[in-house]
Amino acid sequence: MADINSKLEIGVTTGPIRGSKKIHVGPLNVAMREIHLEPGSGEEPVRVYDTSGPYTDPNAVIDIAAGLAPLRRTWQLARGDVEEYAPREVKPEDNGQLGPDRSGGVPPFPTALRRPLRAKAGHNLSQMHYARKGIITPEMEYVAERENLGRARLAEYKRDGESFGASIPDYVTPEFVRDEVARGRAIIPSNVNHPEAEPMAIGRNFLVKINANIGNSAVASDVASEVDKMVWSIRWGADTVMDLSTGRNIHDTREWIIRNSPVPIGTVPIYQALEKVGGVAEDLTWEIFADTLIEQAEQGVDYFTIHAGVRLPYVPLAAKRMTGIVSRGGSIMAKWCLAHHKESFLYERFDEITEIMKAYDVAYSLGDGLRPGSIYDANDEAQFAELYTLGELTKRAWAQDVQVMIEGPGHVPMHKIKENMEKQLEACGEAPFYTLGPLTTDIAPGYDHITSGIGAAQIGWYGTAMLCYVTPKEHLGLPDRDDVKVGVVTYKLAAHAADLAKGHPAAQVRDDALSKARFEFRWRDQFNLSLDPDTAEKYHDQTLPAEGAKSAHFCSMCGPKFCSMKISQEVRDFAAKQNQPVQTFIASEEEAEAGMKAMSQKYEEGGRELYVGAGDREHD
Amino acid sequence: MADINSKLEIGVTTGPIRGSKKIHVGPLNVAMREIHLEPGSGEEPVRVYDTSGPYTDPNAVIDIAAGLAPLRRTWQLARGDVEEYAPREVKPEDNGQLGPDRSGGVPPFPTALRRPLRAKAGHNLSQMHYARKGIITPEMEYVAERENLGRARLAEYKRDGESFGASIPDYVTPEFVRDEVARGRAIIPSNVNHPEAEPMAIGRNFLVKINANIGNSAVASDVASEVDKMVWSIRWGADTVMDLSTGRNIHDTREWIIRNSPVPIGTVPIYQALEKVGGVAEDLTWEIFADTLIEQAEQGVDYFTIHAGVRLPYVPLAAKRMTGIVSRGGSIMAKWCLAHHKESFLYERFDEITEIMKAYDVAYSLGDGLRPGSIYDANDEAQFAELYTLGELTKRAWAQDVQVMIEGPGHVPMHKIKENMEKQLEACGEAPFYTLGPLTTDIAPGYDHITSGIGAAQIGWYGTAMLCYVTPKEHLGLPDRDDVKVGVVTYKLAAHAADLAKGHPAAQVRDDALSKARFEFRWRDQFNLSLDPDTAEKYHDQTLPAEGAKSAHFCSMCGPKFCSMKISQEVRDFAAKQNQPVQTFIASEEEAEAGMKAMSQKYEEGGRELYVGAGDREHD
Repeated sequence: MADINSKLEIGVTTGPIRGSKKIHVGPLNVAMREIHLEPGSGEEPVRVYDTSGPYTDPNAVIDIAAGLAPLRRTWQLARGDVEEYAPREVKPEDNGQLGPDRSGGVPPFPTALRRPLRAKAGHNLSQMHYARKGIITPEMEYVAERENLGRARLAEYKRDGESFGASIPDYVTPEFVRDEVARGRAIIPSNVNHPEAEPMAIGRNFLVKINANIGNSAVASDVASEVDKMVWSIRWGADTVMDLSTGRNIHDTREWIIRNSPVPIGTVPIYQALEKVGGVAEDLTWEIFADTLIEQAEQGVDYFTIHAGVRLPYVPLAAKRMTGIVSRGGSIMAKWCLAHHKESFLYERFDEITEIMKAYDVAYSLGDGLRPGSIYDANDEAQFAELYTLGELTKRAWAQDVQVMIEGPGHVPMHKIKENMEKQLEACGEAPFYTLGPLTTDIAPGYDHITSGIGAAQIGWYGTAMLCYVTPKEHLGLPDRDDVKVGVVTYKLAAHAADLAKGHPAAQVRDDALSKARFEFRWRDQFNLSLDPDTAEKYHDQTLPAEGAKSAHFCSMCGPKFCSMKISQEVRDFAAKQNQPVQTFIASEEEAEAGMKAMSQKYEEGGRELYVGAGDREHD
Repeated sequence: MADINSKLEIGVTTGPIRGSKKIHVGPLNVAMREIHLEPGSGEEPVRVYDTSGPYTDPNAVIDIAAGLAPLRRTWQLARGDVEEYAPREVKPEDNGQLGPDRSGGVPPFPTALRRPLRAKAGHNLSQMHYARKGIITPEMEYVAERENLGRARLAEYKRDGESFGASIPDYVTPEFVRDEVARGRAIIPSNVNHPEAEPMAIGRNFLVKINANIGNSAVASDVASEVDKMVWSIRWGADTVMDLSTGRNIHDTREWIIRNSPVPIGTVPIYQALEKVGGVAEDLTWEIFADTLIEQAEQGVDYFTIHAGVRLPYVPLAAKRMTGIVSRGGSIMAKWCLAHHKESFLYERFDEITEIMKAYDVAYSLGDGLRPGSIYDANDEAQFAELYTLGELTKRAWAQDVQVMIEGPGHVPMHKIKENMEKQLEACGEAPFYTLGPLTTDIAPGYDHITSGIGAAQIGWYGTAMLCYVTPKEHLGLPDRDDVKVGVVTYKLAAHAADLAKGHPAAQVRDDALSKARFEFRWRDQFNLSLDPDTAEKYHDQTLPAEGAKSAHFCSMCGPKFCSMKISQEVRDFAAKQNQPVQTFIASEEEAEAGMKAMSQKYEEGGRELYVGAGDREHD
């Protein structure tokens, strides 16, 4: 154990994100990140949404072998509707092992033997259930505080945007959160057995969220790398993480991940069920699947991808396609249906699955098993047949007050994206949409994070609540740590572009702070306000490594003759003469002069190389 | 000279792009690239638009010191409206030198002393002029052949898309090209003194084009790196290249670039004019500027960025902004106007500039000197005031049959992009729009190629004819070779996403070919059909380096239990039983079996690691 633990500790990245400080706001100590700007600038710190958990808190003690503190436990117990009980016994096949011998496998999580919680008989732990009873839970209060980020400064910003019928409030109250959850327009994934998670909401009237995928391979040491990948992805902004582990050690790997995750964890239970029957889809049974749901619910999985919309009659529709079925879960169920020539047991037993979900408050992520895998197949009959079935299932889940989100495509050209959103809103009663991309072309393997980021920004603008990231390795191979970071940052910026376009209050605060820092040549502030400060500084330093360049009033894209700041000075004087109102955020004469002096010097030293344009200014 | 030349030759990348062959089509030998697919697949080769020139033709002899062959010269002379004349003498100040001593400078291009062409008195060499006289030039015929790429297979593809009022024909005839150029809806940049350029069209009814920017720094050896950057950017798909060189040796550097460029070259003449007056904007005069236009027109620059829309009364409007003026050319002219408190000489003398343009067929790229440099400043008064003046100038240029395109922003959130396109179409009579991005957020320095690629794909869809690339170094530093490639590929995929969404005929041919190859596990075909085959293969090999994996019927994202191909086999059988029509592009039973066998084996060897998902299939 010991060296395994040390391995794990070594593997995890901790410490503050540069230039920012962890803060805790309000009675519930909601974690946020505050970016502090140059003292001289007179600028307020900028508060940003923080998904990174205690790992970026210098005051937190991180012990991977002990897991995170159970933030929500007292809230859960206070509701008086839960009971502790003896957990289902872990079987060798849960870890894909043939016998009890675990040598060479993953060590069980040290405290994994704790007693899980579930609803007392006749009770329902779903946040939707509380919401519909008019109860505002601490989870809802936490979400309200968390989403209001920066809105204190709202007065300074006009509402501006096109939200396509969303109902984004100026200010998020706990009552607003309750109402959104009650009507199914938002979910708060919060399995009672994952008390370590910080409550967050997924819904079109909240900030657009992103998901990152991880998954283990089969050697013990990789538990460390999977836990590290989880911590790494939330450091850069992943709002939820899906554990797509397969193969051996799947149960124990999941335990290590959940116990150390401050964000909701999603899984695709059919993967593990398939393992338990040796990978033979036709041998899957309802009993094995239901047992797997219990197993994972007891561990604390917050949402399950369930492909209950892949119905027997839809399978032949996929035969007309260029790329058939590209969803793993979808293909497993299609195979089962074909083998037995029977309707899917996920569809037939849906209400029984819902019974299990509500006993732990596991949310549905209804899988799009028939999503298109190519531009050619976009928006076809198979895809929409399934979508309307997901709408029917949404209502059946809601009848038992269970939270639901809907998974979406896939590969879709830009002009067909909006139809996906509109049909989903209509078919699924505004249940949150959770899409993969979509990829807007098929021709850019190696750049599919970009191809899909284009589609993700658009569908996020139209109303998608959460965007599942795509990495540069899409369609080609397995993402490594760098791929995970690039995927997360790309999707973070796509989600932010969507928030801006929807007119999300205060979404623009960060853009304005960065642009103002850029205009005033506060380089460190530009780096620190960016989504990836390390990369921003690295790129800057490749051209101007000198420490002085970080404070100098010049950049490598323009020369002194082209400095927009200097011109703006002159413009201000000119405008003043004409008694025209001019904003005062322009730097002072002295600063300008100092800047020009430094610039000219650097410029001559640099053999006028600074003079060459780059990007924006490079354009002309 | 000798070692300079050898340096240059060393610096340039030549040879075919992997998996494809240069072909020449039709009576005019229009250059295209043909991607050949696995013989076994029975697939036709895929023809793709090729901007790379002779550099990717194994039969071409490349001699940088001699330049490319003058493809268009015979066409030009046949028109009988040109005259050779003694060129303007190159002055030391053209290269930023104080005296005739060129030691340490850039060597003059060996054959630079040739006699340039210009229109005989009373003639107009503009393609627009010919078009309006009803003449179909070889340039127009070349463009028609070039744009029709793949449309022979059009019958297989239904028209599908939303073009927002564009008039994209099923098939491009020379007469269609003539008509588009005559009405100003498209331009064919083709300076009579750049006969090496392969004719191409920029207009909303043609394929969306992209531009890459390069620019020299001041040491001789860098001529090699700038010529190499030009060749490198067209290799990956740049349709035009802007030479934004500044500082010293600007004249000679430009000569080396133009003589070796098969794509149109654009410049911002005010940069060189400013050099000639020692960088003091207020010392600029009409005479110096006009002389610079002649100098560059004689060298063969195909389009000039002219910031004639930055008028004295608009300058104060920029004072209200968060980020002032971010265009270098715009700030120079704003400074000149303020210093003299006079209207811009570019605006006052616009018709005289037009006289020069038509004598060489240089196209206008009317610069957006007041474009917004931040989300905060998007779509403001200053920006649109300038845009409407550009519309007025467009009509004045058209009055003399001179070709025009209009430059656009900049930084614009998604919900404000469409207004830019609509106002431009209305104000400028559908003259081609040429935009930088736009960037849809300000918070992602280091990822601005993506932030702007999102905006570029959208504005391209709405009707922008050419997209100016942005590299990852945007706002931070100077792009290197790798940055140039990433910028070009990102913009190539954005332009293609736009073509697909506009419903461009046959745009989808390449997507379909790649998706089919993916479905049939033809890995090499997937790599070769992608925008960047080298990166695609590299990423694939990071997970599955074995040579066998290139032909194996499996991928690292799914296991045999999840293979969509196998499922599709079963689906086909199932569907057949139900007498449902099924397309036949699904692989044969034998192939499937072979594939599964190879898969299972690899899968077991790999310790089931292949089982882990990635991206699309990783989703679930």
